[in-house]
Amino acid sequence: MNRATVATAYQTLVAEGLASAHVGQGTFVARRDGGSLAPPPAEPFLDWDGHSSRAARRLVADTRRRSSFDLLARARPGLISFAGAMPDASLFPTDAFRQVLNRVIKREGAALLQYHAVSGYPPLKRFLMGWLLRHGIEATEDEILIVNGSQQGLDLIVRILLDPGDPVAIEQPTYPGALQTLEAFQAQLLTVPVGEAGLRPEPLARLLDQHRPKLLYCQPTAQTPTGLSIPQEARLELMALAARRRLPVVEDGFGGPSYQETPPPPLKALDPHGLVIHLGSLSKILFPGLRLGWIVASRPVMERLLALKQLSDLHTSALLQAAVFQFCQRRLLERHTRVVRAEYARRRAALLAALGRHMPAGTSWTVPDGGFSLLVTLPGRVDTDALLPEAVERGVAYTPGAFFFADGRGASTLRLSFSGIPAPRIEEGVRRLAETARPALRRRAPRAVGERSELPLV
Amino acid sequence: MNRATVATAYQTLVAEGLASAHVGQGTFVARRDGGSLAPPPAEPFLDWDGHSSRAARRLVADTRRRSSFDLLARARPGLISFAGAMPDASLFPTDAFRQVLNRVIKREGAALLQYHAVSGYPPLKRFLMGWLLRHGIEATEDEILIVNGSQQGLDLIVRILLDPGDPVAIEQPTYPGALQTLEAFQAQLLTVPVGEAGLRPEPLARLLDQHRPKLLYCQPTAQTPTGLSIPQEARLELMALAARRRLPVVEDGFGGPSYQETPPPPLKALDPHGLVIHLGSLSKILFPGLRLGWIVASRPVMERLLALKQLSDLHTSALLQAAVFQFCQRRLLERHTRVVRAEYARRRAALLAALGRHMPAGTSWTVPDGGFSLLVTLPGRVDTDALLPEAVERGVAYTPGAFFFADGRGASTLRLSFSGIPAPRIEEGVRRLAETARPALRRRAPRAVGERSELPLV
Repeated sequence: MNRATVATAYQTLVAEGLASAHVGQGTFVARRDGGSLAPPPAEPFLDWDGHSSRAARRLVADTRRRSSFDLLARARPGLISFAGAMPDASLFPTDAFRQVLNRVIKREGAALLQYHAVSGYPPLKRFLMGWLLRHGIEATEDEILIVNGSQQGLDLIVRILLDPGDPVAIEQPTYPGALQTLEAFQAQLLTVPVGEAGLRPEPLARLLDQHRPKLLYCQPTAQTPTGLSIPQEARLELMALAARRRLPVVEDGFGGPSYQETPPPPLKALDPHGLVIHLGSLSKILFPGLRLGWIVASRPVMERLLALKQLSDLHTSALLQAAVFQFCQRRLLERHTRVVRAEYARRRAALLAALGRHMPAGTSWTVPDGGFSLLVTLPGRVDTDALLPEAVERGVAYTPGAFFFADGRGASTLRLSFSGIPAPRIEEGVRRLAETARPALRRRAPRAVGERSELPLV
Repeated sequence: MNRATVATAYQTLVAEGLASAHVGQGTFVARRDGGSLAPPPAEPFLDWDGHSSRAARRLVADTRRRSSFDLLARARPGLISFAGAMPDASLFPTDAFRQVLNRVIKREGAALLQYHAVSGYPPLKRFLMGWLLRHGIEATEDEILIVNGSQQGLDLIVRILLDPGDPVAIEQPTYPGALQTLEAFQAQLLTVPVGEAGLRPEPLARLLDQHRPKLLYCQPTAQTPTGLSIPQEARLELMALAARRRLPVVEDGFGGPSYQETPPPPLKALDPHGLVIHLGSLSKILFPGLRLGWIVASRPVMERLLALKQLSDLHTSALLQAAVFQFCQRRLLERHTRVVRAEYARRRAALLAALGRHMPAGTSWTVPDGGFSLLVTLPGRVDTDALLPEAVERGVAYTPGAFFFADGRGASTLRLSFSGIPAPRIEEGVRRLAETARPALRRRAPRAVGERSELPLV
């Protein structure tokens, strides 16, 4: 036999899971449990930790710390999980999307599968110009960059603006992805508390008297984890403050479902000076898995973002951009938004009602203006991270609040996401949560009189 | 009228190109040339350059320097462009891909459009295990990470390994995307010359006597721009050297069309110690626009890569991964590879023959083992960057060689890519190139006797 035949045979065995290959050791018969009979790996040949960048060392330590939770919250039969704040896949307009994909491949497949301009698929950008304008944002085509979801947008923004050690103002609690990104960059985090009405301008003003952060990161509309939005008045105040202090503002996350009749305009709509770098995405309303988002920024910022996006991955898939454009163009996005908003509003109402019915006295929670989640504060010094295994035991999961805080606060808080659970199951989930919390609260000392709650009551 | 109606009207005008919006200035009637009658933009409110990261400042300066060429090489009627080294879109199996996309959306659309595991779509990873094994690489599923093309792979690798100022060994000439990425990271570049048989181990060994680079970047197989591959012997020598010096090696670009009967194995196949971080991609054989590639690395490296990939963009589109898996699974990739290899081989042969027929005496060029391009060295001190406008005037474009060098060399070289031009047009393109070069060579001094050519003759 020649070598190719043997290699093909091995390949087939590996592909069918009957064999398992190990670099430098050979190919082995696979064990039933998916492992193999290979000898245990020897000591690493190179000290990869010593060989890593400072960013990677920080990042790995942080990821290891967070991963214990991931493992725990994996599907158990019957578990009601309030943990993942993501849209419900059972509501996806999958077949409509298949049809627009077909259409764009038939029409312009070769061009969409070739290398593409870094800034994005022009028809989608032009559609976004109109969509943004409806939300009060006037942007030209060259002030929009299509990216792989807002997470990539945030990564690019941080990379063009921050050097290691730079101070950054960030609302707290906040999106853990932002905390991790900034921490990996060795940013010095300066937290600004979120009040009952979102990020508050006054503490930010006080912070700016003492520090010179290079930017402010915030989610002004339906922020994670609280679901709160900054009201119009405070937005104007915030933007006046940013202009006075020449403070760039990263505005993340406009575009999820809103439960307000007239949601306030995004900060970018109140920004005549080009200080706001605005991040949008279709992950909350349409498909998170497409990884499609956009940055709106003034031209000097855009020049830097384009150069870095090019180095990061050349461009975002034009095929997916074209399909989304077709989807939007045919008003399918509008229709879909109405459908899912109504459904998520039902789930939100069910959760708020169930919390009122079941949670122990003194428990408080935020009332979300939009998005998928709210934050609960338990009345006492309970560590919700430590309590999670017990909750999972009782058939309910949540995200411990400490994940959303930069400075170790938030231990007695937890995030509940209502987007993934049909309304009738929500009540049972909250009942299990209350059952878990009650004995834990009896075991711990109550919060001292006069001690400030970590989050506003509602 | 209410505000929404007015906003919708504006939106329609902007979408149809009749109006143009400017933040903080208002919406204006669009000019015919796509500009608008808006007042000229005022001075930027913020000094964004002073506000940028060091990386962004470097990157923008570098991008501005390179962009003059991009503008020039834009399509002119009748231009024969050897400039872009990309597959020919007219050979794309577009309809076959449409069919597999349909299939995967129908079967598992909802799951593929939801958030997905960061490391990649498991069936594609298992397929790759077998494919890699056929090329001599034994990798387990958790040693493979799916990324948005090898450009993202390189960016992730650099970010987990390098701190600003770190020394890096890199072959020269090389892929400009690698040079730009490393320069943006403020890496200290130590160049290792590419000889007639690719990267040479001896100069690398001498370099390692004096410096301690954190990694070596190379394209051992069909490297850009020369198309040369390192022979088996030298590969073994290189890997022995890397092991002796504990030198991580980034192996980029295996997977393009090969014109050798039995191409040598990738370096990763000769790496018992896990020193090689291997980058692969489908951009050269299948569709560049999918932005789909993979990294193969040992587990300690993979842990870092996964954490960073998560922060960079959460994951690569699972929908596209699943479609590519289906495409490969049905042996369509193998069939397609045979078709395009035959066509690119014809174009390569046409180019080599035309160069021999037309180029001025003393001109030399590399004979590519694979890939899409070769490097020509003109016999004299001609600056091919300065010569390009004249070439375009005569109806032919190329990439100036200086783009592939880190240290200002390569001025008398130029890259010709043959992948995008049908064989019959290639001869005419080379004739025009020779016509451009001949008078330029007469105007410049010939290279002094004994002065070393910048690249090996063939």
